This record gives sequence, structure tokens and C-alpha cells, in this order.
Amino acid sequence: MKYELYYWPGIQGRGEFVRLALEEGGAEYRDVALEPDAVKRIREYLEGAAPRPPFAPPYLKAGRRLIGQTSNILLFLGEELRLAPRDDAGRLWTHQLQLTVADFVDEIHDVHHPLGPTLYYEDQKPESKRRASEFVSQRMPKYLGYFENVIERNGGGALVGRRLTYADLSLAQVLAGLRYAFPKSTANALRRRPRLAALEDRVFARPRVKRYVASPRRLAFNNDDVFRRYPELGD
Amino acid sequence: MKYELYYWPGIQGRGEFVRLALEEGGAEYRDVALEPDAVKRIREYLEGAAPRPPFAPPYLKAGRRLIGQTSNILLFLGEELRLAPRDDAGRLWTHQLQLTVADFVDEIHDVHHPLGPTLYYEDQKPESKRRASEFVSQRMPKYLGYFENVIERNGGGALVGRRLTYADLSLAQVLAGLRYAFPKSTANALRRRPRLAALEDRVFARPRVKRYVASPRRLAFNNDDVFRRYPELGD
Repeated sequence: MKYELYYWPGIQGRGEFVRLALEEGGAEYRDVALEPDAVKRIREYLEGAAPRPPFAPPYLKAGRRLIGQTSNILLFLGEELRLAPRDDAGRLWTHQLQLTVADFVDEIHDVHHPLGPTLYYEDQKPESKRRASEFVSQRMPKYLGYFENVIERNGGGALVGRRLTYADLSLAQVLAGLRYAFPKSTANALRRRPRLAALEDRVFARPRVKRYVASPRRLAFNNDDVFRRYPELGD
Repeated sequence: MKYELYYWPGIQGRGEFVRLALEEGGAEYRDVALEPDAVKRIREYLEGAAPRPPFAPPYLKAGRRLIGQTSNILLFLGEELRLAPRDDAGRLWTHQLQLTVADFVDEIHDVHHPLGPTLYYEDQKPESKRRASEFVSQRMPKYLGYFENVIERNGGGALVGRRLTYADLSLAQVLAGLRYAFPKSTANALRRRPRLAALEDRVFARPRVKRYVASPRRLAFNNDDVFRRYPELGD
């Protein structure tokens, strides 16, 4: 099966969680973000060129199907690319962890957009600063502590079972993003959570992931993206 | 199968989306929120009494399984209670819509918590007011327009197919909540989106839903909940 990934050009964003699954799964795919008319083509579907239109990118074309919502795409790819357990309980548990990663990503995004996605960061800087301080002191430790605990209960090497799942790939991407956005707090937090740090290393040492990250297709973290480095936020 | 639903007492919250599915599906379930030691029992699982611990309520006990994340619980119940199509494409499309409803609910919640969930509303009133104005003018119309369009493409009676799915139940609950939280803007918005208004009526006219909503088990909307009525936010 050849896939087509639709996501905004110039950022990793939520599309990156899908890319990491496609890459680790060895899938053949076309990344529309790399094509010159990407934005136009994305908008066609958003404005209704599909019987089941997505609300927002990323979405994945798989044959005649168009699948939206990052976690839903990963639920689909988990089965297709064997990046999740095959039994029903393991499949749902992996998805539950992914949804918790997605909630974490939403909160990371909201640090620089506390007043909502319709205003620029520059119009909400004092509010961002307050939210950043709550995030780093309260929310980030809560999420990281949760995932560290899940890995520990699972025997230490991954979130679910022995093999890596798409939830591990996504969590490792979040850790890399946090290191970019909040370097001091993240380094401190991961020093006390060795299983998370080891998971990040394990994921980024996978041959296919490593090859992808070293390729020009992997964009750098940047401040138009979900993870943003604003030193004025105090980290 | 008898289910046990774990959710905080005193609010509808995200637990209500699960309750509506259980009620419409005719499931036998125990609602832990109605029991005197609810908070203590919920915390036991959050603090690690399960090999696969949930991050937050709601979670559902189904036999020996513990399933967390609202949308994931509904994915599970959709199959169990026949509240979703049985084919793989229809099942994923229903879930995709549910995840978009969940994103909408997150944004509704964030109107009164723009600086994050760790502070009280009273400590973020001016910020809430700015976020409310963006929400009502930009985000609410975007989501409502999207769902109206999906219903229209599906022939007008529901989001997916002819029978109601859990996504319809959740969307109707959101519309009821918006009428409580933003009465004027919501009435205006739904006047121009007749398919959404009709879906809300259809869901709340279902015999089992109607019986549930008339029962003392259905809590009233209130200002400790996701949907909050603060006239000072300008609606």
C-alpha cells in the first residue's frame, strides 16, 4: 500500500508523529508537504473534496480512504505497519497512551497560545509566561511521571510489551521537542526519569528512524511549530 | 457484561459522553460517582492499583480490563453496544469525528482556563474574557460549520449512516452544553445550522436518553464543570 500524508509544509507539527510511524514501519509514502502546491492541495480536502472531510491536517490517504486526526491515523497505521499489539486489549491500551501523549502535546502547544489558536504568540506574551510557569512546575512533571511509571510497570524498555509501538515513537518525539522548548527543565526532569531518557535514545537509535532524522526530509524544530523555544518564558 | 464507570462526582464532565453511550446502548453499569467513597476509589486506580493505570478519569472497568481516555472508551463501547458501524472504515471515521468533538470540548474548557488547569477561573478572568471572544467569533463557528457540513453530506439525519452513533450522542451533549454556557451565541449559531439543531433534538428524544436525562442521575450543568455560564464573559 502506498500512502499519501497531507500536512502543512515547513513544520514538524502533528504530522511528525505520523511520519515517524511511516518511517519506522518501512512504509512507502508520498509526503505532500514536500511538493510545491502543498497548501493548495491540503485546502482542497478541507474545503470539501472528500465525502468524509477531515477537520484539519494531518490526514492520510490510504487507497480511496482519507483518515484524519493524528491518533486515529496512528490507530490505523499501528495495525497496517505492525506498530501495535494485535490483540484487542493491547491495541486499545496503546491507543489510550497515544491519546494521553496527544493531550500532553495540546498543553505544550497552549503554553505559547493560552488565549487560543486565532491570535499570534506576540499578542499573548504575558499570558504565555504565566502558563509556561504552571506548565513546567505542574503539568510537565505530572505527564512525565505518568509515562515513566507506565514504562516501569511494563518492565522498563517501552510503554507496551517488548517491541516499540507508535506510542513509543510519539513519546520520544515529545521528549525531543521538550528538550528544544524547555532545555533546562527537561534535562532536569529526565535526569530523574531514566526510563524516559532511555526510551528516547532507543527510538532515535532505530536504524530507520536514524536514517530519517539524518535526512533532509526531517525538518529542524522551529518557532512556527508546536514546540517553541522562547527564552523569555523563563527556561 | 456489567460495566463500572469511574468519574468525579458532582459534574457531568467528560464522563457524561460515556454515560450517554451506556444509557443509549441499554448497558447495565455501576456509576461509581454516585457512591459515597467515589473520590477515594477513583484515586486508588490513578495512584497505581492497575497494571495499566489511566492518566485521569473517566475510565471504565469492563471485566478485568480498565479502559481510559473518553474517546478510547467510546471506541470500545461503540463495538460492544453497537453504537458505531461495524466495518473498519466506518468505525475509524466515527472515531475521527469523536476526536474532533473532543478537541472542541478541550477548547470550550480552555475558555475558562486559558492559563491552564492548575489555576482557578477566578485567577484568570481577564484572560478568559479575551479567549471567550476569540472562541465565540472564530472557533465555535468553525467547529459547528464543520459538523453541519458532515451531517449534510451524510444525508442530513446523523454524522455517520442512518443509525445514531456515539459521536452523535457526544455532539448533541456539546450542543446542549454550549446552550448553557453561551446561550445567545449558540442560539444564533444553531438557527443557521438546522441539521445540528435537528440532531440535538433527535438525540434527546431517544427514549432511553430521555429517561436518563429526566432521572436524578443526570446532573444539571454547573460552573464546576466543562461547560460554564459566566455572563461576564460577554454572552
